[in-house]
Amino acid sequence: MAKRTAAPHKSWLPEANKATADFPLTHLPYGAFDQDGQQHLCVAIGTHLLDLYACAESGLLPSNLVEACQAPVLNPLMGLGHRSWTLLRETLTALLHADEKPDRRQAAEAALHSIAGSTLGRPVHIPNYTDFYASIYHATRVGQLFRPEQPLLPNYKHLPIGYHGRASSIIPSGIPFFRPTGQSRPFAVEDAPNFQPTKALDYELELALYVGEPSLLGTPIPVSRAGQHLFGVSLLNDWSARDIQSWEYQPLGPLLSKNFATSISPWVTPMAALEPFRAPAPPRPSTDPKPLPYLHSIADQQHGSLNVKLEVLISTATMRTNKLEAYLLSKSNTQDLYWTPAQLIAHHTSNGCNLQVGDVLATGTISGPTEASAGCLLELTRNGAQPILLPTAETRTFLADGDEIILRGSCEAPGHPRISLGECRAAVLPARPLQP
Amino acid sequence: MAKRTAAPHKSWLPEANKATADFPLTHLPYGAFDQDGQQHLCVAIGTHLLDLYACAESGLLPSNLVEACQAPVLNPLMGLGHRSWTLLRETLTALLHADEKPDRRQAAEAALHSIAGSTLGRPVHIPNYTDFYASIYHATRVGQLFRPEQPLLPNYKHLPIGYHGRASSIIPSGIPFFRPTGQSRPFAVEDAPNFQPTKALDYELELALYVGEPSLLGTPIPVSRAGQHLFGVSLLNDWSARDIQSWEYQPLGPLLSKNFATSISPWVTPMAALEPFRAPAPPRPSTDPKPLPYLHSIADQQHGSLNVKLEVLISTATMRTNKLEAYLLSKSNTQDLYWTPAQLIAHHTSNGCNLQVGDVLATGTISGPTEASAGCLLELTRNGAQPILLPTAETRTFLADGDEIILRGSCEAPGHPRISLGECRAAVLPARPLQP
Repeated sequence: MAKRTAAPHKSWLPEANKATADFPLTHLPYGAFDQDGQQHLCVAIGTHLLDLYACAESGLLPSNLVEACQAPVLNPLMGLGHRSWTLLRETLTALLHADEKPDRRQAAEAALHSIAGSTLGRPVHIPNYTDFYASIYHATRVGQLFRPEQPLLPNYKHLPIGYHGRASSIIPSGIPFFRPTGQSRPFAVEDAPNFQPTKALDYELELALYVGEPSLLGTPIPVSRAGQHLFGVSLLNDWSARDIQSWEYQPLGPLLSKNFATSISPWVTPMAALEPFRAPAPPRPSTDPKPLPYLHSIADQQHGSLNVKLEVLISTATMRTNKLEAYLLSKSNTQDLYWTPAQLIAHHTSNGCNLQVGDVLATGTISGPTEASAGCLLELTRNGAQPILLPTAETRTFLADGDEIILRGSCEAPGHPRISLGECRAAVLPARPLQP
Repeated sequence: MAKRTAAPHKSWLPEANKATADFPLTHLPYGAFDQDGQQHLCVAIGTHLLDLYACAESGLLPSNLVEACQAPVLNPLMGLGHRSWTLLRETLTALLHADEKPDRRQAAEAALHSIAGSTLGRPVHIPNYTDFYASIYHATRVGQLFRPEQPLLPNYKHLPIGYHGRASSIIPSGIPFFRPTGQSRPFAVEDAPNFQPTKALDYELELALYVGEPSLLGTPIPVSRAGQHLFGVSLLNDWSARDIQSWEYQPLGPLLSKNFATSISPWVTPMAALEPFRAPAPPRPSTDPKPLPYLHSIADQQHGSLNVKLEVLISTATMRTNKLEAYLLSKSNTQDLYWTPAQLIAHHTSNGCNLQVGDVLATGTISGPTEASAGCLLELTRNGAQPILLPTAETRTFLADGDEIILRGSCEAPGHPRISLGECRAAVLPARPLQP
């Protein structure tokens, strides 16, 4: 690579060097966009995207990565393993750096498109989706609503609780979805259940962890080696119908209350871009059990957590009519999760379960220690008992038709450009009428 | 098609006409086998398989089905929809019928291979796997073990309970798997959990229903139209680690207790072959709630269930050393399930969840009304309290290393040749040592 004379983070694209840029040179999240009816992979830089297919075509990428970079999804690149990810990231960083040679820079410029003028696609084929429950604050507050005598179940501090979600209904950010219809039950135990559009539609603020390198059936991934299997992260909204959930979930867990739609953000932030924003795992009170050896590594405890600042905003139909900005519902941070990403991977594979290229492991609702930092309406409104008052004088217990929920994430650390994970947004459409 | 003069079920392959044949002309289950390193689709007939790739190559199949029949998996054929399935089945039935013209028969003969001499593969790519809990006898007896005061939960008779399983760890029949290691807890609530190989490894006797025609997100499949989306069935063993399950399952359901391995049989019996073995849904006591309209169709109640006779057998290492036959553990029948296949599909999509080509919906453990007809060891041994005595004088509470479990299924009805669903078998390997 060329010897650098400009500052290490400086790009020849001036917009990428602004302090407000979501996608500085240090970020380079992966995505996919529509190019004349074909899906091309890309990375975001400033307000533009760099077409990886075109870069490969122009001879700007290492020859052993050309095929993966010209695929319509990231899975082939993910499957090549973390050394290839590093090679590609170094190549792209040099290509967009202020010190790049004029001919390569010129060739790269020809592969730039404005993000605003592009149609983003699904960058990853997701074969399997597992959703965890890694926020102890979320688990505790939800438990308080339904089991005040025992909010946190005895297993919680010993192992990362999770369930298999539905991969087929993961949808890209921006696609609205129909309010689901389902069985729920009126208040009294003896009442017959109804089949009706959910009256308790909720969002869940989550981080999606993408598996890159797969693992074999029967071969656990040790917590100390989990990092090399993780490719990157996106924002994820695990939409939930609370009335359907409370009726169906015993004894096998949630099914129809969750699998009608799960939204995921378009940009995949590579783990390498998150290195400056690593954080120690939150300290456990001395009364908490020590994690069993298969969940414990000193390095993971020291910097296995992530410092990602998260926000949830709502935009109602009335707000949009009145041209009001989306309203901030809450803020939280992945640093407050009880379990680290490496612990989720080590636990998931501890019985020999295999992970496949592109699998998503989501954190579960990310809530913080204060009530204002809750990552879902179930907590924020105490299951509808404390409605939220919006600036339009509207109130919400759960979501109304036309409501749009926007998740945002960003990382800041001294000496490093801020990066943004972008947005995950989707609006609620009215329930479809029942078919005959 | 040629006018038939021989009996409607008579094949020119004599072995297929024997009363003991698993695969008579009326069956023609789909499979896949290895042909010189390439996976070809096939149907079973007698003790042979008919290579569909070769049949297509020889011009024996309708031209619009050639591409799907030359694919390595059934998914393209499944995706073509039930009219194409019917066309292919009629074509193959005529091709193998005693009245077929000599030139076509000769060409078909050239595409026959002995099943015993072939290596069977995975005929379907399974994108999503959902496991139900459709046997009320299973649910009740399991409930009696853990909640004697309320064996059956209040939701059970109102909706088909189920959870998302793990598609990645579904393995073909015949592949052994490692005993999983995981967290479980000694008897007392205050004891710390162990991380050790499961001491309560169990099988679950199930039927796998394959989705053929997909459905769109947001578009429920009415119970009356569920049939056209179902492609066929196989036998499935949902291996379960009961000690891991009882510790992890609250509040989100089973995860690591199930996702280490799920075995599936190699032959996919088309729904058309099961038509003679349709059965009425079991009568519901008048005290049971009537299914809600979205789960109810008169036709489904009249013949939406299936009469598939099932058996579970065990072969221990000691039995094999002594050349003893596998020992019958129990018998049951899909006819005893509380919910029909169409009800499972209607419920799964009632919230708009989309089904994809090749998805598996499994029934859950199929147990009958008597204790001897239980489909898992948890029930048969009352969670280990009543060990089973085997002919070798060995006893079992749960499975030992080296044990092989064999599931078998067959259908009989007056005036119709018996068909067999074949076998689903797998042996338990000792747990792998923990990695450093």
